[in-house]
Amino acid sequence: MILTVTPNAAVDLTYRVPRLERHGSHRVTEVTERPGGKGINVARVLAALGHDTVVTGFAGGRTGEQLRALLADAAPEKLLSWPGSVTDALVPVAAGTRRTVAVVDEESGDTTQFNEPGPLITPEEWDGFLGTYRGLLTDTGTDAVALCGSLPPGVPVGAYGTLVREARSAGVPVLLDTSGEPLLRGLAARPDLIKPNAHELAEITGTSEPLRAAHEARRRGPHTVAASLGPDGMLLVTADQVWQAVPPRLDGNPTGAGDSAVAGLLSGLVEGLPWPARLARAVALSAATVRSRVAGEFDQETYAELLPQVEVAERTPTP
Amino acid sequence: MILTVTPNAAVDLTYRVPRLERHGSHRVTEVTERPGGKGINVARVLAALGHDTVVTGFAGGRTGEQLRALLADAAPEKLLSWPGSVTDALVPVAAGTRRTVAVVDEESGDTTQFNEPGPLITPEEWDGFLGTYRGLLTDTGTDAVALCGSLPPGVPVGAYGTLVREARSAGVPVLLDTSGEPLLRGLAARPDLIKPNAHELAEITGTSEPLRAAHEARRRGPHTVAASLGPDGMLLVTADQVWQAVPPRLDGNPTGAGDSAVAGLLSGLVEGLPWPARLARAVALSAATVRSRVAGEFDQETYAELLPQVEVAERTPTP
Repeated sequence: MILTVTPNAAVDLTYRVPRLERHGSHRVTEVTERPGGKGINVARVLAALGHDTVVTGFAGGRTGEQLRALLADAAPEKLLSWPGSVTDALVPVAAGTRRTVAVVDEESGDTTQFNEPGPLITPEEWDGFLGTYRGLLTDTGTDAVALCGSLPPGVPVGAYGTLVREARSAGVPVLLDTSGEPLLRGLAARPDLIKPNAHELAEITGTSEPLRAAHEARRRGPHTVAASLGPDGMLLVTADQVWQAVPPRLDGNPTGAGDSAVAGLLSGLVEGLPWPARLARAVALSAATVRSRVAGEFDQETYAELLPQVEVAERTPTP
Repeated sequence: MILTVTPNAAVDLTYRVPRLERHGSHRVTEVTERPGGKGINVARVLAALGHDTVVTGFAGGRTGEQLRALLADAAPEKLLSWPGSVTDALVPVAAGTRRTVAVVDEESGDTTQFNEPGPLITPEEWDGFLGTYRGLLTDTGTDAVALCGSLPPGVPVGAYGTLVREARSAGVPVLLDTSGEPLLRGLAARPDLIKPNAHELAEITGTSEPLRAAHEARRRGPHTVAASLGPDGMLLVTADQVWQAVPPRLDGNPTGAGDSAVAGLLSGLVEGLPWPARLARAVALSAATVRSRVAGEFDQETYAELLPQVEVAERTPTP
């Protein structure tokens, strides 16, 4: 089983409009509701790939109920094409889960995104969550854990450091995918893998050249750095190797592409694949997500078609 | 008691963002949730003015539950400043109540609006609603009824004609505030009052000059036409008189200004005020809504300040 943690889970709404006009009034032609937040997206891709997953984090208020209902609706027994499962282990909180609204402009295909602020988590709720998290790490056959996304208000900024250390104590491989100060604090606790994008990497290292920045980030603690570079694919820096994987093409909506990449890396880890195969999977899943009609979903056929087309090459290990 | 009908009720979300960028990603700094839809807005303004109201229409799904919870939260026993009440007589339906999202750009003050499509109403649900509506018209001390807004999918396009005729049979004064084909069909059933804006009036008459268009609309059935003209206030055409009311100033967000005008006209009718006083109230309430921070709310102090400043003048009755 793979555990994913989403402290700032969401209900994701996608609105399609014929053409977005700043300060105009729009009739939405199509509404899609999905369970959202990075770790939940990762779990859904993992389940589609055949892995059983457990999702934890916080759920509160009416939107929290809606999130849980959407997770239950998307259970694989209802969607027969998913060979894996998503089990809800979200921790109830008093404040309401946030919504995100992605407005897709049908004329240009571009997306305008609105993210509500997350719910305020109390110190007692955070402590309660830590207990649940420890139980999930140790009680079940947890093969890996992914810590994903932003922290809602009230959660300590060093939270990911704590969660990485707990995973390492339990002997569970841990991937961290966040940004800014929460990423910096998490790095120092030495996660097995981080997956920043080029912007996040530059933000924490002050270096814009991706290979140098990835090396620099790795020096701060994580065993491996997988940097997602958009159309340039993914760069992987381990203790002694550097790999780059390039997808055949990337056009569409990038929402969720990073989460699909995390699912590709994690599934490859749990299946014991070599690094080049993990990278190829991550990049093909990203590309299949970019080309999907609904923000954050990935297209299985596109994935199967793209996977053999991804080029993975070893690069000179030092910058 | 004043009854308001909102066939296409909504949960209204207002998002504040520092600056709206087409195709950008935005952190929403403030989220406001309100019970929405024109008739519900009208009832809330009436309650704030001291009138007891009953709201009917449809509510369904999780957003329908949220709408009812928001109505209950806004009950006057909780908000002591409201001397009137809003009683929920919404009819449950299977499909989900829509949301609307108003994105306020804090830099310019302008609003970008997204309206989800309404729920599909079945013929059985429409028949059930008609029974509820007849009961509300006849069983209680209903002094007036307002029929407000768009029709959700599945409701017959001639619905407002039916609802106007039922009100007239029950001897209850009826105001109709809608647009397009539903307005044209409703007109023919001879409502006591319609309140189109300049655009809606031009759309049904083919005449863009407001006074001529208002006369033309009145010939099609309604006893009185109150045309809202934005910054130019309101034009009223009865069988033998024409009045125009002009507010001192109008700057801000026009969302809900028309609904506040309806509340002003209806409260004046029920209180037996002469037409100039009803018009002044409608125009001052509109202006106080335009100047409110939250889309659709009106500011009581601004209303009290503006009311004596509205100029009402009689105009030549024929165009």
